[in-house]
Amino acid sequence: MALDFAGAKGSMRNVCVVGAAQTKFGELWDRSLRDLIVEAGIGAVKDAGIEKSAIQSLYVGNMSAGRFAGQEHLGALAADFLSLRVPATRCEAACASGSVAFRDAYYAVASGDIDAALVIGAEKMTDVHGSGALTTLAAAGDQEWEASIGLTFAGLYALIARKHMVDFGTTREQMAAVSVTNHKNGLKNKLAQFQMKITIEDVLNSAMIADPLRLFDCSPITDGAAAVVVASESAAKKLSTQPIYVLGTGQGSDSIALHDRASFTELLATKAAAKKAFEQAGIGRNKIDTTEVHDCFTINEIISLEDLGFVEKGKGGKFAEEGKIDLNGELPTNTCGGLKVCGHPVGATGVRQIVELARQLRGQCFNPINGAEIGLNLNIGGSGATAVVNIFGKEPRY
Amino acid sequence: MALDFAGAKGSMRNVCVVGAAQTKFGELWDRSLRDLIVEAGIGAVKDAGIEKSAIQSLYVGNMSAGRFAGQEHLGALAADFLSLRVPATRCEAACASGSVAFRDAYYAVASGDIDAALVIGAEKMTDVHGSGALTTLAAAGDQEWEASIGLTFAGLYALIARKHMVDFGTTREQMAAVSVTNHKNGLKNKLAQFQMKITIEDVLNSAMIADPLRLFDCSPITDGAAAVVVASESAAKKLSTQPIYVLGTGQGSDSIALHDRASFTELLATKAAAKKAFEQAGIGRNKIDTTEVHDCFTINEIISLEDLGFVEKGKGGKFAEEGKIDLNGELPTNTCGGLKVCGHPVGATGVRQIVELARQLRGQCFNPINGAEIGLNLNIGGSGATAVVNIFGKEPRY
Repeated sequence: MALDFAGAKGSMRNVCVVGAAQTKFGELWDRSLRDLIVEAGIGAVKDAGIEKSAIQSLYVGNMSAGRFAGQEHLGALAADFLSLRVPATRCEAACASGSVAFRDAYYAVASGDIDAALVIGAEKMTDVHGSGALTTLAAAGDQEWEASIGLTFAGLYALIARKHMVDFGTTREQMAAVSVTNHKNGLKNKLAQFQMKITIEDVLNSAMIADPLRLFDCSPITDGAAAVVVASESAAKKLSTQPIYVLGTGQGSDSIALHDRASFTELLATKAAAKKAFEQAGIGRNKIDTTEVHDCFTINEIISLEDLGFVEKGKGGKFAEEGKIDLNGELPTNTCGGLKVCGHPVGATGVRQIVELARQLRGQCFNPINGAEIGLNLNIGGSGATAVVNIFGKEPRY
Repeated sequence: MALDFAGAKGSMRNVCVVGAAQTKFGELWDRSLRDLIVEAGIGAVKDAGIEKSAIQSLYVGNMSAGRFAGQEHLGALAADFLSLRVPATRCEAACASGSVAFRDAYYAVASGDIDAALVIGAEKMTDVHGSGALTTLAAAGDQEWEASIGLTFAGLYALIARKHMVDFGTTREQMAAVSVTNHKNGLKNKLAQFQMKITIEDVLNSAMIADPLRLFDCSPITDGAAAVVVASESAAKKLSTQPIYVLGTGQGSDSIALHDRASFTELLATKAAAKKAFEQAGIGRNKIDTTEVHDCFTINEIISLEDLGFVEKGKGGKFAEEGKIDLNGELPTNTCGGLKVCGHPVGATGVRQIVELARQLRGQCFNPINGAEIGLNLNIGGSGATAVVNIFGKEPRY
């Protein structure tokens, strides 16, 4: 039998982001995973202007500390080193781990059980324990059918890129435009892994990684952590900072292995997540002022803009090439540099995207989008088996 | 500033367990992790008497598939192989991973956003990828201060046991009594790893593992999965099965490393979790008819009964020795064999405990406790850095 769907919004409390912080992202050879977690966590609490004792629960997004650092049980470790004696859980969905941690915190606050939770996304990918970073990242795909035969994530997204080129005429130059835009946006971002201007030619002439993807199409291996404090609306209203409302949140899933998908060029998980998030927010695509999307590889920013419904399928490359994603374009995207430029500490990325949106909507971003009221982030796990879409606004309803 | 606590129960919906299943536990050399996940997941859905399409979200409790099986992103993998295209998240808190998955599902349903979620706990610990099971399990402790110097979990609990013996006069025979009782309880449990009667002498003469703990004090290395369907009360009432209500749930944390604790002989995480769960349930200890506690080592069952408040600190050994935990005793405990006899596939154990309680309260257990109305489970992560306590009843309030 089918169970009735009780209707979400009626009984759920409004939830806000009230504090946000991140560490420097990069190859941080002198920082351990726990150092990064503590810095980001304390930063978010301070940014919220609350005492640490107000935090009632901790959610840590992390993909693979077990393999990267020989450390499981990371929620408890984080609580310990933050001197927080509260429930602490690690949440994982590969590169979308930060976002699923955020969603679990969201539900805990929305349920009415707690008023404030701390969400930390973190990954330490250099100086790793055991097998290397690429082998560990491959564990986000299907171990038995993909990773075990040597298929890396650059390889998976290269297959996706090639099919997009064949089906829709997407060009190398269009993919390069994504990287050039993100590097331009991140130029002043001191917390980003890279600060350098690049040209289309730089991308086209960079080393081949997995044909057709070249070095400057790929997000790097990164250490870093980001954190947000999530609170109920009633709690948020007591604080002096501008609360950022969660207008909608959605999560979707799809087959873990690429070969099982109906299509290589659209991610059904993204479509499902976006559908849910927009329905909950009760707004249309045209209301979104800025987006943070998952450019683990340039092709994925193009596909993401299509699957989110901002541009017709197959037209994402042209959209990027025409400057529509620029800071002064139709849909300013990855305004601080995205995964390509900030770096991609996998468990941290989803939370880092939320930190960026909070800064944008509070008017604290070094690349301000004038009058930005509503922002959206899309965080993808693996080659698209998980996708999370969150929509944030300065007001509770639009 | 401190945020007000909004008060939990007022706004939260009642949540029930409506389906429960588990696989055979043991050394399952011919079964893969995904085989176990699928069998348990389908089993729980069938037991609930619902269509799979009624499941709106999936939470997978797993400690270390990344190290055991080379597979992260286990939520998406589970959703894929169950053909569930719903949000799917893996939750981890070492040996309490199953319980934190259960709690995340609980909040999602309690919030009002969804009506039904599937929770699967699973671990494949034999036939492992990379380093062995004991090294992987040590990642539940502090990697930098415990695991890296070779301290295993038997070693950690041996330190705890020795201190309990010194401080309270707990004897080897009392610890052995826990193992003997659990073996007696599990004798008819076909899904348990072991079916054999043992004596106090058998325990005392078994091989030394970490002084004072011997082989028969230790739960084994196990493959297995368990699953429950969690649903809102309104949904549960449409089903023909007896709903099992979540009366209260609590989670606590403590320092990850043993040397940072104020005491070796009590787990503050258990006390915090129990306090929250009993407050939410609004009942006293005397209302509990049966318990499932975390006997990863015999000493931990003794300490758990003390920290839960069922017996005075230091008297847990005597409580066990006097038969108070027997099926016809004051507090029937681990009525199907506990971790020692069922086996301890770490991510599955918390869910397996809930499966046992659901069977008890529905009157489906092969060791029925006459008139059992309310049951409690305690699931512990690591050496006590995480503890989860859940209280279940046949009615929504007592």
